[in-house]
Amino acid sequence: MTEFGFIEQLAARFVALPANGFEGIGDDCAVLPVGNGEALLFTTDLLTEGVHFLRAATSARELGGKSLAVNLSDVAAMGGRPVATLLSLSLPADTTDAWATEFMEGYREMSERFGVTLAGGDTTRSTAGIVINVTAIGRADATHIKRRSDARAGDTIFVTGELGASGAGLNDILAGRYDTPAAAIHRNPQPHVAEGLWLGARPEVHAMMDLSDGLASDVRHILERSRCGAIIDVERIPAAEGADVQLAACGGEDYKLLFTADAATSEKLANDFLEKFGAPLYPVGTITADTELVWRQNRRPVERDWKGFVHY
Amino acid sequence: MTEFGFIEQLAARFVALPANGFEGIGDDCAVLPVGNGEALLFTTDLLTEGVHFLRAATSARELGGKSLAVNLSDVAAMGGRPVATLLSLSLPADTTDAWATEFMEGYREMSERFGVTLAGGDTTRSTAGIVINVTAIGRADATHIKRRSDARAGDTIFVTGELGASGAGLNDILAGRYDTPAAAIHRNPQPHVAEGLWLGARPEVHAMMDLSDGLASDVRHILERSRCGAIIDVERIPAAEGADVQLAACGGEDYKLLFTADAATSEKLANDFLEKFGAPLYPVGTITADTELVWRQNRRPVERDWKGFVHY
Repeated sequence: MTEFGFIEQLAARFVALPANGFEGIGDDCAVLPVGNGEALLFTTDLLTEGVHFLRAATSARELGGKSLAVNLSDVAAMGGRPVATLLSLSLPADTTDAWATEFMEGYREMSERFGVTLAGGDTTRSTAGIVINVTAIGRADATHIKRRSDARAGDTIFVTGELGASGAGLNDILAGRYDTPAAAIHRNPQPHVAEGLWLGARPEVHAMMDLSDGLASDVRHILERSRCGAIIDVERIPAAEGADVQLAACGGEDYKLLFTADAATSEKLANDFLEKFGAPLYPVGTITADTELVWRQNRRPVERDWKGFVHY
Repeated sequence: MTEFGFIEQLAARFVALPANGFEGIGDDCAVLPVGNGEALLFTTDLLTEGVHFLRAATSARELGGKSLAVNLSDVAAMGGRPVATLLSLSLPADTTDAWATEFMEGYREMSERFGVTLAGGDTTRSTAGIVINVTAIGRADATHIKRRSDARAGDTIFVTGELGASGAGLNDILAGRYDTPAAAIHRNPQPHVAEGLWLGARPEVHAMMDLSDGLASDVRHILERSRCGAIIDVERIPAAEGADVQLAACGGEDYKLLFTADAATSEKLANDFLEKFGAPLYPVGTITADTELVWRQNRRPVERDWKGFVHY
């Protein structure tokens, strides 16, 4: 049962319940308008040992930071500012107090860096592996919130950074090479929080989400939700050092942002972004009016059987 | 490492972070005022197989309902109305689609009963047991919110129902008797949501929390947070059928409410509660100005080495 399949099943099953002001499932966060033009954002992620991480391949401190980072990225992906988290932690008997303390230190450092408070939590024993659940809460100007459903035909498709380094790192880790630069990038994702907030405030930005499962998989969510298609120019996908274009398109956990923006003003947007963040935006393609995802190389369609990332 | 010890360690470690408007850890929920006299409440609970439940001893549907119920109880304990939840579910390969569907049906039924929407979630594979994390979101009139820290000397201490049935059921389950009435009560907690909301609106109610770890353990949290003591009359503890007074005081997971109220008006409060809910409030003791917890029988202090419930 895939995550997205299950979530769709959930949504169908629960659709008859009162919404209580919440917007339905389908974006990186749930949205609750709270008055005065403001909304709250909510997202949750469960990380389990052996599926999302290997205990031997990560330090406790790195894992603490990453557990938080992946949730902050979801808030950033909607144009919000993360403000608080709730942390649930289930630890087996063979984790030491030192491990738990280091984990919390990594979590605290990442919290401090992004100005996020720890508002609550739960800790339990585990009879099996380590389990971590983080719920992140964000705030946003209601008019700044970006969704997956707002791409428009003609929009330029952008990503906010090079892709594939995390995927290359995962490959290293799976091959037993834990100490490569790419493996370190995989263990220490840097969520684009300031970037998401800044893009949220730009009305020419239409649809947005974060890249957690890989461009080839994630872009399809925007296409489905926006009922549109896309042409992606393979040679424009910015592959990070150590990643080829396939890994850049299919590798997971880069935690850059993927968004679409009005083509007429997208050059100015990219210039402003460069000036603000000292880093470029990467245009990789165009939203189309049909519902196909077309890969193109040298302006000609090419067959690519590219899928997103599946956890180990 | 006990849950409460770890949470205190967390709080100390994170105290330097900006609060972002959230009230700190220590109550059943975190509180975020959102303007117009309203506040949001947040709570999270992680349930792990073999620690919080035995797969063989519960149906998937019951587990789905219970996973939600224990969180709704936390919102009720603050005087709030639960409005939404986020559900994370980690399932090992040996859980069938039928199991997952039944679990969701139990979750949906409990959601429907209390008018709560499912706002988001995450599902993953598990390499070990079933893990469930629920985050519940509530709304409350900011002036109705009850905390653990507001008990006052002279207050009457109440519980909202008979105690010990869930503990008796757990004993049955641990002895392999899954089909007793008490075991069914243990698997199907009924959170006092309407009761909590009603008590929240009564200004004569001071401190409140829910009974998840047993009266003997939970009342100490009110005493610590309110910097006061208590006398509890052992013979007034309302033991449910099949539970003796020790189990009523020490058994966990009853999910009734524990609160303190102005003694001068507590008889009227109890009468109004009886009229509203057709069930009595049970006065079990009195808040004192010192910091001791005194058990009393026939108006004389008695030694009781009673502690709360620890998960298996």
